[in-house]
Amino acid sequence: MTPLKILVLHGPNLNLLGRREPEIYGSITLDQVNAALEARAAKLGAVIDSFQSNHEGELIDCIQTASALYQGILINPAAFTHYSYALREALAAAGLSLVEVHLSNIFAREAFRSHSVVSPVAAGVICGFGINSYLLGLEALVQVIGVGGK
Amino acid sequence: MTPLKILVLHGPNLNLLGRREPEIYGSITLDQVNAALEARAAKLGAVIDSFQSNHEGELIDCIQTASALYQGILINPAAFTHYSYALREALAAAGLSLVEVHLSNIFAREAFRSHSVVSPVAAGVICGFGINSYLLGLEALVQVIGVGGK
Amino acid sequence: MTPLKILVLHGPNLNLLGRREPEIYGSITLDQVNAALEARAAKLGAVIDSFQSNHEGELIDCIQTASALYQGILINPAAFTHYSYALREALAAAGLSLVEVHLSNIFAREAFRSHSVVSPVAAGVICGFGINSYLLGLEALVQVIGVGGK
Amino acid sequence: MTPLKILVLHGPNLNLLGRREPEIYGSITLDQVNAALEARAAKLGAVIDSFQSNHEGELIDCIQTASALYQGILINPAAFTHYSYALREALAAAGLSLVEVHLSNIFAREAFRSHSVVSPVAAGVICGFGINSYLLGLEALVQVIGVGGK
Amino acid sequence: MTPLKILVLHGPNLNLLGRREPEIYGSITLDQVNAALEARAAKLGAVIDSFQSNHEGELIDCIQTASALYQGILINPAAFTHYSYALREALAAAGLSLVEVHLSNIFAREAFRSHSVVSPVAAGVICGFGINSYLLGLEALVQVIGVGGK
Amino acid sequence: MTPLKILVLHGPNLNLLGRREPEIYGSITLDQVNAALEARAAKLGAVIDSFQSNHEGELIDCIQTASALYQGILINPAAFTHYSYALREALAAAGLSLVEVHLSNIFAREAFRSHSVVSPVAAGVICGFGINSYLLGLEALVQVIGVGGK
Amino acid sequence: MTPLKILVLHGPNLNLLGRREPEIYGSITLDQVNAALEARAAKLGAVIDSFQSNHEGELIDCIQTASALYQGILINPAAFTHYSYALREALAAAGLSLVEVHLSNIFAREAFRSHSVVSPVAAGVICGFGINSYLLGLEALVQVIGVGGK
Amino acid sequence: MTPLKILVLHGPNLNLLGRREPEIYGSITLDQVNAALEARAAKLGAVIDSFQSNHEGELIDCIQTASALYQGILINPAAFTHYSYALREALAAAGLSLVEVHLSNIFAREAFRSHSVVSPVAAGVICGFGINSYLLGLEALVQVIGVGGK
Amino acid sequence: MTPLKILVLHGPNLNLLGRREPEIYGSITLDQVNAALEARAAKLGAVIDSFQSNHEGELIDCIQTASALYQGILINPAAFTHYSYALREALAAAGLSLVEVHLSNIFAREAFRSHSVVSPVAAGVICGFGINSYLLGLEALVQVIGVGGK
Amino acid sequence: MTPLKILVLHGPNLNLLGRREPEIYGSITLDQVNAALEARAAKLGAVIDSFQSNHEGELIDCIQTASALYQGILINPAAFTHYSYALREALAAAGLSLVEVHLSNIFAREAFRSHSVVSPVAAGVICGFGINSYLLGLEALVQVIGVGGK
Amino acid sequence: MTPLKILVLHGPNLNLLGRREPEIYGSITLDQVNAALEARAAKLGAVIDSFQSNHEGELIDCIQTASALYQGILINPAAFTHYSYALREALAAAGLSLVEVHLSNIFAREAFRSHSVVSPVAAGVICGFGINSYLLGLEALVQVIGVGGK
Amino acid sequence: MTPLKILVLHGPNLNLLGRREPEIYGSITLDQVNAALEARAAKLGAVIDSFQSNHEGELIDCIQTASALYQGILINPAAFTHYSYALREALAAAGLSLVEVHLSNIFAREAFRSHSVVSPVAAGVICGFGINSYLLGLEALVQVIGVGGK
Repeated sequence: MTPLKILVLHGPNLNLLGRREPEIYGSITLDQVNAALEARAAKLGAVIDSFQSNHEGELIDCIQTASALYQGILINPAAFTHYSYALREALAAAGLSLVEVHLSNIFAREAFRSHSVVSPVAAGVICGFGINSYLLGLEALVQVIGVGGK
Repeated sequence: MTPLKILVLHGPNLNLLGRREPEIYGSITLDQVNAALEARAAKLGAVIDSFQSNHEGELIDCIQTASALYQGILINPAAFTHYSYALREALAAAGLSLVEVHLSNIFAREAFRSHSVVSPVAAGVICGFGINSYLLGLEALVQVIGVGGK
Repeated sequence: MTPLKILVLHGPNLNLLGRREPEIYGSITLDQVNAALEARAAKLGAVIDSFQSNHEGELIDCIQTASALYQGILINPAAFTHYSYALREALAAAGLSLVEVHLSNIFAREAFRSHSVVSPVAAGVICGFGINSYLLGLEALVQVIGVGGK
Repeated sequence: MTPLKILVLHGPNLNLLGRREPEIYGSITLDQVNAALEARAAKLGAVIDSFQSNHEGELIDCIQTASALYQGILINPAAFTHYSYALREALAAAGLSLVEVHLSNIFAREAFRSHSVVSPVAAGVICGFGINSYLLGLEALVQVIGVGGK
Repeated sequence: MTPLKILVLHGPNLNLLGRREPEIYGSITLDQVNAALEARAAKLGAVIDSFQSNHEGELIDCIQTASALYQGILINPAAFTHYSYALREALAAAGLSLVEVHLSNIFAREAFRSHSVVSPVAAGVICGFGINSYLLGLEALVQVIGVGGK
Repeated sequence: MTPLKILVLHGPNLNLLGRREPEIYGSITLDQVNAALEARAAKLGAVIDSFQSNHEGELIDCIQTASALYQGILINPAAFTHYSYALREALAAAGLSLVEVHLSNIFAREAFRSHSVVSPVAAGVICGFGINSYLLGLEALVQVIGVGGK
Repeated sequence: MTPLKILVLHGPNLNLLGRREPEIYGSITLDQVNAALEARAAKLGAVIDSFQSNHEGELIDCIQTASALYQGILINPAAFTHYSYALREALAAAGLSLVEVHLSNIFAREAFRSHSVVSPVAAGVICGFGINSYLLGLEALVQVIGVGGK
Repeated sequence: MTPLKILVLHGPNLNLLGRREPEIYGSITLDQVNAALEARAAKLGAVIDSFQSNHEGELIDCIQTASALYQGILINPAAFTHYSYALREALAAAGLSLVEVHLSNIFAREAFRSHSVVSPVAAGVICGFGINSYLLGLEALVQVIGVGGK
Repeated sequence: MTPLKILVLHGPNLNLLGRREPEIYGSITLDQVNAALEARAAKLGAVIDSFQSNHEGELIDCIQTASALYQGILINPAAFTHYSYALREALAAAGLSLVEVHLSNIFAREAFRSHSVVSPVAAGVICGFGINSYLLGLEALVQVIGVGGK
Repeated sequence: MTPLKILVLHGPNLNLLGRREPEIYGSITLDQVNAALEARAAKLGAVIDSFQSNHEGELIDCIQTASALYQGILINPAAFTHYSYALREALAAAGLSLVEVHLSNIFAREAFRSHSVVSPVAAGVICGFGINSYLLGLEALVQVIGVGGK
Repeated sequence: MTPLKILVLHGPNLNLLGRREPEIYGSITLDQVNAALEARAAKLGAVIDSFQSNHEGELIDCIQTASALYQGILINPAAFTHYSYALREALAAAGLSLVEVHLSNIFAREAFRSHSVVSPVAAGVICGFGINSYLLGLEALVQVIGVGGK
Repeated sequence: MTPLKILVLHGPNLNLLGRREPEIYGSITLDQVNAALEARAAKLGAVIDSFQSNHEGELIDCIQTASALYQGILINPAAFTHYSYALREALAAAGLSLVEVHLSNIFAREAFRSHSVVSPVAAGVICGFGINSYLLGLEALVQVIGVGGK
């Protein structure tokens, strides 16, 4: 059976994972996150491609090519969560199943972090579990795709 | 090895699951949710007790007894999400690991649903994946307990 | 012809009617309200069951059993009007015709009374006419049921 | 016994009733509303005069003459509901019993419709029951006049 | 010397003065207000024409003709104070000296009365002194015209 | 081929065009605007009737007769833009194609001008181009009618 | 002399006192609070009955019986402070002298804690002094009753 | 006949009048204002004492002594208008007739100037007429005292 | 044993106590308040110095000298409660135990009175009990000092 | 005669035009939009260069070079409309005539779309007419340039 | 060459510098700040006079005398920053070059500290650098005076 | 001694300095700013590298490499000041001393300019002094680094 193809997107500053404010974001690096996602994907009959950028435009470019190549997108929009309507529009336009994840519990930090412009176009949201937010998000996404959800 | 003991709490009207507005909440019943959680718990080396109530006070009473009996709480506060500071206080006082889940994507519905008074005292939040929100939430909770998180 | 069956619900503190702040709520007791409703129902080819509680959970429990037994609900949510999303959800889930009534004109008192979380799921709202709010609400409800409205 | 004299006022665009957005406002015409009100008034020992205008000033002029001629006013302010403080002042100055009605449930539509500048000077409000809002409002008004209420 | 010509405008419901809510607005009638203004004008070397209307459009029509005939406008916009941007625009377009008056202290009543859409285009505002608000406003206006103020 | 029939509506104070605050609104008169619209209409295979009023009610009366006579409405609501829900309702009820225009850029002036209660029921909005706002609006309207848009 | 009878009410989660977040609420238990209140009451010529519940409805039921049995109510509404209009209504309806107390200084914590829906119907409020808030509140209440205050 | 005694108070920076931002406040000095007030007072059968201070406390001290010595207060609170609740309380406590004046039209300047904490305790407000605001305010005050108004 | 030394501060207009709006503030004078505080202090093993001023700066000067002389401050900030951040800073800088009291229930009056800029730096707050607010506040303060609280 | 040179800018995701949410944005592609603009430009004596980017920075770079090469800019900022102050600054700095267009009526969609940070620096705005918004915008821009407007 | 004369103003509680909350404000005293400013002034060809007061009125009195004596003002308004419109008006009226400084980063503390009523009338603002805020502010001020800025 | 290494970052449109709106931003070019910074740095025992970009992503990329190479960052975020949480996160993650500067007084211009999302993660802020804001900011930064501040 052809495996599901999933695009994993990491927003700005996530390339610093493991080095940046480890008391909040932990000591796991982005490479380790991606490796863990690949392993979990394998168990779920899926393969992932992952992409990180500090450039809103590069993320949008990447999303625009995703429709033809992937069945779903797993995204941690990082700081773009709070203002990038352009990212939101790209995700909505892609027409793929979409799951939004965050490493930390964004509702238990500064007020500005509680508002996501991306959430209204996602199937669901997972936050607060560190790397596990990604892994659970991948499971959720595979399930959403399986039932034909957006 | 002693299995983890997890308390699963379902807020008001969730006993109607499967019959209530199935276009939003799906056709799975609460018994089926609990059965699925039990099965998943078994795989994770955990056992669950589940409790549903339409009474804020009964949920609080139940939470107050949980400290001595459980290592974590998985809760779908349903409509209490938006105003029950009493529930929040009970959960905070319990001092257990806490994961909040919702069947639907509460950020893609009416404005009042976007605000949770519970989230700031939870380890993390998962929403939008139907019954899978519960199952992923259970996985997340087991992991949170494993690392000693609150 | 089988009479319509209507559930009449009275929210918190309405059991005090006639004794509580009579300059606002009048001197008629809840028993008298129910008796007047029964008499009016008889004229309209309907029968009523009435229930009062100070417990949000008891009202929700009662509403959940109503679907199978009644064709409509007449409710004065009293103070729950302003915050009980749980009550609103129960009413919405019941799928019955629903009319909301208030003894006093809630728009001519303190600001917090002008907002009802119940109104958006009701067919209509009547307020300001004392016991007559109930009687007119009953008439309206019978009519709404007659035309198959929610 | 001298019948009560009631002034029925219809705000802007209500002359289009039956033709305008019938999915919201139904197919009954304003003449039919007035005829039904006349019939109901007869049963209640009252007579009505009705007046519709798209001109705020004409409604105010009409209200100013009402004190000497009527015992009460039944009004559907239509779109003036949301901003016409001038209409509100005229109604308050008339010193007659006043009931406000709306065909649709104004609390279940766009946000701007939930705020009425007229309600604070009315005895009570009825909305959501189509033509029945008028008929119930007439009954309520007759009762309010009977007990000497404003 | 040619007397100054002043247009005095009275907004909606002011024709009821003396009969309407006398505990707020006093027992003096609009005719008496106008007579007092005429007398005061005579002392100030001015003549007045006064106009009252419940129709926003009639007031605007009147204001539009004022440029050629008058040197200043004294207005009590009554309820139009709070929302009639059309009146404001007409007054601004007239290019005449403008003084706004109110019988009662609009800052010591309901919150909605504290905001005037007219004030930003007036030379000044006087409120709270009953009929004296008009008389002082007339004195102020004559002075404003005298120094060529708008 | 029968020409399209278009109703052009001008809100309050627009009869002063050319004389009123020319630094904002220019020196072209309303007659010149109408003449230019007639000429442009001829090129587009349409004829126009134009109507200006300072009376909200007259504009509504006029709109109510438009359904049977016209295929579209071009409106500059002027100051009514910001509060006349009655005008909005009349336009929505007419069921014709609708284009809203403004002479000045309402988004580059006082804050209150940025909100239009009419825009949500229009096909589109054009502002900032002086008389050209009208001419472009007419072109847009003819096109909207051509594709059967509202 | 007959001692004053005072009802002491403790809101949700206060049964956990001494065990719950002791860094905020201290290590004294609710039994110790009640014992201290009884001792202080004895000195003041009063006797107390105390009642704690996590159920809003039980507190309301209890308050409704209080009118006939007590001269005053001392309440720590805990989390109900911030949203329970039903509790507020019950307290207002009881018609007894009322004092509201809080263990912690609610104005020096999270923003949501600064707003009490109960305070407007109390004689006074005391917060920030731990168990002493209760004892001082009892003294205040006895004094309020003594001067016939509400 | 004993002349009325009026206290005239000038708030902070008004001692600079004539030198400070003359394009807004004009070139008349505070001494000239006081002289003009004295002259006008003489005509009205009154005498004035005037006091200016940049110290909120000195103004309050002065107001506190006024009850026994004066029948009314004429105040330009200047910048204290917008925040000095202490000044407001002193004025309210004085129990004298009170008129508030401003040289400029505070509603046509920066937003913060539109809100006065003093106005709700004044009989009326006059603004926008330069020195004439004071003179008209004095006339208004004498009239208010004459009818026993506060 | 050396008695505790307590500084009692009274904000603006409190020197008028007993004469100012007695229906709100009662008929007891400030001297009587101070005498009652001295008597109560004696019972508590403390002595007080009291100081009243209408001058924010004098209160701050006084507070600045308090660190070396007193163990705690009891303050009724009166109208400074709502805006004097300078007073708050002085109190915070003093580093002494601090209790804030109000004669009336500030939560049952005008909206602006519900917000205190001082409360966040106090140990606790007592309001609504007239002179008893002071006496209870003194007891609370002695207790706070006793346990080394701020 | 030298043709006018116009820069046409398309914001993020507009390269997807025709494929993205066609029920909102139609089935015309961006190439077709550009071709239609070129044809219309030719009729108007102008030539266009068009540029689309998902990168805010690339659009800004492009705008910075525009001053020397073009007489005007026609822009559809897409999602950048709502937050890109950097784009706004670049457009303001360019000092060229500027027209803002949108395919859909941004005032009849989600609330966040009603606010444009670009509009205050544009000459005018056109929205709601699909590709015609562009074509009319081009006409408007040519006219604006012709009269030397910004 | 005549040295520049600069007035340095320190707001309330700054006389406590070095003793007050040293973890925020450091251990340097106000005398040391003034000495450092004198030294820096000497290098810049300027002399300073410094003045601290806890009295808003004394600061205003001082500023009013400054026009004739100084070329610029360097001010740390301390807590007056957030509400003293009287201070702002005095500074604006002085007509001198003005620089505002703060020891701490007011944008990284409580929300109320982020708003300054003084900043809009200053040439510039410097905060966050402890005593260095003053020294840099002095340099900036000398430069502003040098180029004739306000 | 090894000189300090400082990274100077200029946000979008600052490459236009000297040509863009010189009435606000002056006529000095960015090259001149950088040259002046280099000269000042030399005096302070530091060297600078400067980087300007209109691309948020490029600035973030640059900041991410800065930790290893520099001891501090001096940034003028230009328009990114108001919304780029991504930039803020990058700066916070860098862990270097940070000073924010602005050429103009952002508090004396449009309201949106008063809010900076960057300030809470900076050591301090300097604005309003043209090029001098940069030079003073560099001095401040060197001092901050010297005392080991962030």
